[in-house]
Amino acid sequence: GTGRFGLVYDETAAVETQLAYRLRINVNAKFEADNGVTYGGRIRFQDDGSAGEAYFSPAMLYVEASGVRVEVGNANTAIDSVALMYNPEIGFTESSFGDPQGAFYSFSSGGYDVDRVGIYAAYSYSGVNLKASYIKSNQDDPNSVDESSIAADYTFGQVTLAAAYADQGAGIEGNYITFVGAAYAINDVANVGLNYNDNGLSVLGKTITLYGNYNINGITVAGYVSDSDTDGADTAYGLGAAYDLGGATLAGAVHSSFTGDMSADLGVRMSF
Amino acid sequence: GTGRFGLVYDETAAVETQLAYRLRINVNAKFEADNGVTYGGRIRFQDDGSAGEAYFSPAMLYVEASGVRVEVGNANTAIDSVALMYNPEIGFTESSFGDPQGAFYSFSSGGYDVDRVGIYAAYSYSGVNLKASYIKSNQDDPNSVDESSIAADYTFGQVTLAAAYADQGAGIEGNYITFVGAAYAINDVANVGLNYNDNGLSVLGKTITLYGNYNINGITVAGYVSDSDTDGADTAYGLGAAYDLGGATLAGAVHSSFTGDMSADLGVRMSF
Amino acid sequence: GTGRFGLVYDETAAVETQLAYRLRINVNAKFEADNGVTYGGRIRFQDDGSAGEAYFSPAMLYVEASGVRVEVGNANTAIDSVALMYNPEIGFTESSFGDPQGAFYSFSSGGYDVDRVGIYAAYSYSGVNLKASYIKSNQDDPNSVDESSIAADYTFGQVTLAAAYADQGAGIEGNYITFVGAAYAINDVANVGLNYNDNGLSVLGKTITLYGNYNINGITVAGYVSDSDTDGADTAYGLGAAYDLGGATLAGAVHSSFTGDMSADLGVRMSF
Repeated sequence: GTGRFGLVYDETAAVETQLAYRLRINVNAKFEADNGVTYGGRIRFQDDGSAGEAYFSPAMLYVEASGVRVEVGNANTAIDSVALMYNPEIGFTESSFGDPQGAFYSFSSGGYDVDRVGIYAAYSYSGVNLKASYIKSNQDDPNSVDESSIAADYTFGQVTLAAAYADQGAGIEGNYITFVGAAYAINDVANVGLNYNDNGLSVLGKTITLYGNYNINGITVAGYVSDSDTDGADTAYGLGAAYDLGGATLAGAVHSSFTGDMSADLGVRMSF
Repeated sequence: GTGRFGLVYDETAAVETQLAYRLRINVNAKFEADNGVTYGGRIRFQDDGSAGEAYFSPAMLYVEASGVRVEVGNANTAIDSVALMYNPEIGFTESSFGDPQGAFYSFSSGGYDVDRVGIYAAYSYSGVNLKASYIKSNQDDPNSVDESSIAADYTFGQVTLAAAYADQGAGIEGNYITFVGAAYAINDVANVGLNYNDNGLSVLGKTITLYGNYNINGITVAGYVSDSDTDGADTAYGLGAAYDLGGATLAGAVHSSFTGDMSADLGVRMSF
Repeated sequence: GTGRFGLVYDETAAVETQLAYRLRINVNAKFEADNGVTYGGRIRFQDDGSAGEAYFSPAMLYVEASGVRVEVGNANTAIDSVALMYNPEIGFTESSFGDPQGAFYSFSSGGYDVDRVGIYAAYSYSGVNLKASYIKSNQDDPNSVDESSIAADYTFGQVTLAAAYADQGAGIEGNYITFVGAAYAINDVANVGLNYNDNGLSVLGKTITLYGNYNINGITVAGYVSDSDTDGADTAYGLGAAYDLGGATLAGAVHSSFTGDMSADLGVRMSF
């Protein structure tokens, strides 16, 4: 699992500065069959302060063998799993206005309202990752609008390329989502990348994000600039720093949103 | 825990074919005292798609020593724990119309509506299993209608005999449940059995089920025929096959119900 | 975690004798960083029969190093963590009318109604424990009435002294809680103690409790007498016995409350 806690500031909130925390426990059950195939399942529970108590996710089951992984139930989705998409994230809450702004499904930490099920398949071979997923929004509804998505990414040397597409993202009719990203590892301590998102029906339309990070004396400084093609949208940007505490990370960031509002965070995140 | 996923078909459902899955995690806590007595407890959580998220069971606590086991709280029941009762089950969802059709309590995977508590005792000695349980349907209600049940089973050589009786099954007045079963292991690869159920107040009355299975080249073929003494009830039957995947099992079945409706399943089940 | 089950009797209850059980599982996740700092988190789930199923606590995260521990989220509180406060407890349910009768926060086993968060710091050095906590009752409410508390305890030889104070206990305006306790270990098998509680806005006002225990042949006999300064309140008292089952404990107690009502319990408690 993972944990994090710290302070978050949001200029637009009723109470601007709040203490925020999240503890996430992934319960994984699995076994490897005699023939090398791995069978497993996952249920997550977490508390992020939103529900007043910890809460369960729906379950995911999977089978894995020879670079192929198939998930059923609360499956991951191809578009949410593509490489590079969340690289612009900074701060202890790992957030960014350079993240995709459109709606699409992912592994759900919270419960479903309806009988949603998904299936996901991934194949990895020598640096190439291919993924496809299909999420039935409501199995009990014969007219269910379902999401399908595909993704591919490839790393060769210092360059990583990635692309993904979702049809009827999040089960919304006419919501077509596209992502294309490229990243370049300049050297051991510096990286840059460029992400393009067509956010489907989102008011933010298409966004393009330039991001980078640089490590100096154990401190990683990272930043991004994100631009929307929507009239009147400001350029969003953020700057963050992270310091390795020997396994845990002290991280902080300031952001300016597409509407010009300031937010910030400072705290610790950890993995178990 | 256990997991399973696959497709289920039900002729009578609004959406006939659905993806079904269940992931069940048993959280067991126990320790063995210096004198050899084991003290423990169990809380289960699972997701079977019915609640939109994983959910908790109530807790069970137990004490175990010298072949005696006593359970308190969300206890097992004698009638639900008797040998042979669920042997007619087939398919990846492990279901059968040869299962008992009456109402009685068992370890509850879901929550209670009222303040139910139970106590269960089991004793095993050289092939004989004796069990008794008492479930108080609602501790807060002085007029609570409570279930008591007893069970016995015995294996000698190739033959297993079993019988169980529940008084006021599931806390329903006048609901008397009886089970008698016999099974014969013909050889290493073939078994047959006969189960009799008096289903108490169930509309299906008394049912008698003949079942058997045969293993050939790693595939286990199994089937059952179940007959009810109720006027107009069809003979229910089912046929299934299971293939060992080296720990996990690929299994499928087709069933015809007491009303002549067809259902089927095909999928994988696993244990962790 | 811990477990317990047994019978409880309460003269004032609609159903006087009930079966009671509780199974508590603490899910702890932690790691020790290279520099010796420990980072961790806890989510508890338990079933005590009150909710009809097991339920989650909110999460707590912590950092620990060199005798200092800081908790965030569903944090412990200084006043609830002070030494000696719960020493008058007896029986398998570990209860006592000599416990504090006022309202203050503690680690919450159940969910919150509102956005509560807390922070707690503890420092231990050669027998001295210093603690302080601050609980924001509702982060979303700019007028939130918050609890702050401090505690100190010290053990030297056979004597332990402890004191704690909470301002606006449980986020209730004008609710000032004070605790002072002293205990003396007469020898290896006998202890006595005296606890003073100012219970703030509680109708029981100020209470003073004398308690003691004596171990003979593996049986610990314990008792307490508690007196309130409120007009018309009876003197509460209790007597209990506990027998070590080799790790688990068989324990029972009888109590007379501040209103003269009798209650009793008998059962087993265990730790995992």
